[in-house]
Amino acid sequence: MKFCSSCGAPVTHEIPDGDNRHRHICGSCDEIHYKNPNVVVGVIAEWQGKIILCRRAIEPRIGYWTMPAGYLEINESTDEGAAREAEEEAGIDVEIGDLLTLINIPQIGQVQMIYQGTLRSPDFEAGIESLEVKLVTEDEIPWDDLAFPTVKISLEHYYASRRAGEFSLHTQVLRR
Amino acid sequence: MKFCSSCGAPVTHEIPDGDNRHRHICGSCDEIHYKNPNVVVGVIAEWQGKIILCRRAIEPRIGYWTMPAGYLEINESTDEGAAREAEEEAGIDVEIGDLLTLINIPQIGQVQMIYQGTLRSPDFEAGIESLEVKLVTEDEIPWDDLAFPTVKISLEHYYASRRAGEFSLHTQVLRR
Repeated sequence: MKFCSSCGAPVTHEIPDGDNRHRHICGSCDEIHYKNPNVVVGVIAEWQGKIILCRRAIEPRIGYWTMPAGYLEINESTDEGAAREAEEEAGIDVEIGDLLTLINIPQIGQVQMIYQGTLRSPDFEAGIESLEVKLVTEDEIPWDDLAFPTVKISLEHYYASRRAGEFSLHTQVLRR
Repeated sequence: MKFCSSCGAPVTHEIPDGDNRHRHICGSCDEIHYKNPNVVVGVIAEWQGKIILCRRAIEPRIGYWTMPAGYLEINESTDEGAAREAEEEAGIDVEIGDLLTLINIPQIGQVQMIYQGTLRSPDFEAGIESLEVKLVTEDEIPWDDLAFPTVKISLEHYYASRRAGEFSLHTQVLRR
């Protein structure tokens, strides 16, 4: 950030009075501009023992596999966001269930929340951010070609929970 | 947002190619500026059966009671953010435990996560955002003077969990 988004004047980067962190502050209208972490929401969506995976059509990690997931938007809840991403990326209609994983990645300012879900029908279709969408069994998961560590963690916890007979919340902090 | 924070030129508000939502787009450098929900983290912190409550010294809801809570910052995880808010607002050293509540408030773009926690010592002191800090029993909770609906929901779930003998995750979406 170099300019104030409210008035267009240059900003400085300093600690405001009564604060303890550097913020961007407008030199003209005095507005303080806060930058906060983003929420990523997604879903492991099941149909008769198989789950939906998408092969990414966009960077980063183009060509690698993930569950449907993306940034939470204003005016939607985390479960609604997970359902929307599933519709956009995999063309699926999914009923969102329990929260499976809460994974923090502080150095990139991300809080990831992956839900368990159930398809309402077996229809699926690759959206514009997916090269390919598949329904796969556990044996068919491409463990060596997953897009991100959070995908692997969430899939492992999903199958461990399924074997245990109930879905539980797994929390983890990923640091470099 | 009226001006581009990267180059200072005026922005327009329209749907970018390949997107389905209005975004602020710079008319000069073409940068797309996304606005996403914020995460609020907090903790119900216990010491020998009592919990920490703070009376707010700032708007909104100045003078009303809450558990320590506030916006998650870049470079910290949700549990670290909850511990930091507890230190800043109540002067307490708290070990963060289970996630108790995940409450979405889509219309104001907030995702609130309240943890259960345990004080490492009985010391507490009002920070600059608190008028007063107290250790209270369940009977002493000022139910009619709580700052926000999320405080009431989280406290009710905390005591219900404690009576049930284990902490569980309660999820809820608050809509106007």
